[in-house]
Amino acid sequence: MEFKQQLKKYQEIINKELEKYIEKKDCPEKILNQSKEYSLMAGGKRLRPILVIATYELFSNEIEKCMPYAVAIELVHNFSLIHDDLPGIDNDDFRHGKLTNHKKYNEATAILAGDSLLNQAYIVISKDLCEDQENMQNKAKIMQEFANAIDKMILGEYIDTEYEKKEITSECLEYIHINKTGALLELCVKMGAMLANASDENIETLVKYSKNIGLAFQIKDDILSEEGDEKILGKPVGNDREKQKCTYVTKYGLEKSKQILEEITKEAINSIDKFGSKADFLKSLAMYIKDRNK
Amino acid sequence: MEFKQQLKKYQEIINKELEKYIEKKDCPEKILNQSKEYSLMAGGKRLRPILVIATYELFSNEIEKCMPYAVAIELVHNFSLIHDDLPGIDNDDFRHGKLTNHKKYNEATAILAGDSLLNQAYIVISKDLCEDQENMQNKAKIMQEFANAIDKMILGEYIDTEYEKKEITSECLEYIHINKTGALLELCVKMGAMLANASDENIETLVKYSKNIGLAFQIKDDILSEEGDEKILGKPVGNDREKQKCTYVTKYGLEKSKQILEEITKEAINSIDKFGSKADFLKSLAMYIKDRNK
Repeated sequence: MEFKQQLKKYQEIINKELEKYIEKKDCPEKILNQSKEYSLMAGGKRLRPILVIATYELFSNEIEKCMPYAVAIELVHNFSLIHDDLPGIDNDDFRHGKLTNHKKYNEATAILAGDSLLNQAYIVISKDLCEDQENMQNKAKIMQEFANAIDKMILGEYIDTEYEKKEITSECLEYIHINKTGALLELCVKMGAMLANASDENIETLVKYSKNIGLAFQIKDDILSEEGDEKILGKPVGNDREKQKCTYVTKYGLEKSKQILEEITKEAINSIDKFGSKADFLKSLAMYIKDRNK
Repeated sequence: MEFKQQLKKYQEIINKELEKYIEKKDCPEKILNQSKEYSLMAGGKRLRPILVIATYELFSNEIEKCMPYAVAIELVHNFSLIHDDLPGIDNDDFRHGKLTNHKKYNEATAILAGDSLLNQAYIVISKDLCEDQENMQNKAKIMQEFANAIDKMILGEYIDTEYEKKEITSECLEYIHINKTGALLELCVKMGAMLANASDENIETLVKYSKNIGLAFQIKDDILSEEGDEKILGKPVGNDREKQKCTYVTKYGLEKSKQILEEITKEAINSIDKFGSKADFLKSLAMYIKDRNK
């Protein structure tokens, strides 16, 4: 199957699955549930759950077994977006070309919708944990990886916010990216591989791949923030410079950032060569991250 | 041991234990960790972890085995306080007589400190889950109870915020309390009892007790918000009326609220009579909730 087709297929599988986790009944908290649905269904690329599934599929075909984890990671990702957009943090009005959660609803709803999405992720995986006594030990370990990765993501976001207007070292910039974006992507491949009982060596290979595409993803984000098309991106361009935010582009300049992006994309692709044609999708995904325009 | 002594002993045990979970190393996220510590050590009553331990002690003496859960519940409680105090929700400047987290630090730090505390609770219990293969099934169930109770707490907070300025029915008021305050207290006794392998019947008895003290706690909070001593409470009095917030007092009036408080406290005490003198502390705790002045 062509990459774009496969990508679309994955996105459809995930969107259909996410629908099952959206509470639609008429209850006093109806608006809170609607606001969660609003953000969850606002048109994200589903990169994280796709990584879980595609990694899992390197080793096993029973993809329904990894779906709760694909869902959980997307819930967490959306929690982090909603909170990052809040007036007290990035104060963004638009995401995916739509009003951010607090703009569409209100701040209280956005804060609590974020809290609720983070916690719902744990509801989803603890339910799966309880229902699978045979693999409980493995799944308990995954739960622990999950919690530790989210911790890193939150502190990455904190440091990003804290250092926004400060001159920072390239070590610190890297520290932010490793935590804010990298930790969750690493978690995706780890979960996919662990759920399929992959060997430690294979898990390590995939972690290396995820580190590279994680960094590539962030650098590309920084590049798009500088020279992307506002209409395609769905959010204003040039904000980072205006806010004196420290990014790869403000630190290294556009050209050097693009060069780093090329190099680490190549590295990501080479690192998973050993999986042969089974890894074609993951290789194309690395290219896609580099070449995307939104 | 006298109740007050026992209460103090429990508080000391918990404070000492919580200290172990506070990250103090010098790192880029140092201030985030300090802000978490600030709220966590701001002088809370530790009612929730005490409930975990005291319930556990009805059935077993190895209290170190329930400590991770006592810690986790206090982390979650503090997450909820920090987020509730935010400008976008209750907009409170003081708690326990000290500046609220966002006033002491800033809004971004408070949002992320709350997120981090919620997630840390899952780090703590998933670590315990991984390390106890023998009781993994029971602990997986507890993890699920944990996640479901926090979900209720968040939606309770949402409805409370949403209905702040609206005329609501007594059913709705009860729904708010059951979720916002009750769910977490119920979780405390459930965790304590489940960790000690109590029978389903005993768990049910303790849940009944927790429901009553949960309601008592909320009604007493509402009464203190109306007629408490600002200096002792450490927060302004009369705010609820000013904000046209729907509480037991604004709904039923002071006298009727006090009468309900007396009745449900009696009910709570009677419900655990069957545990004999072992339940003395929990009985005194119900009285303490009713009679406290802060």
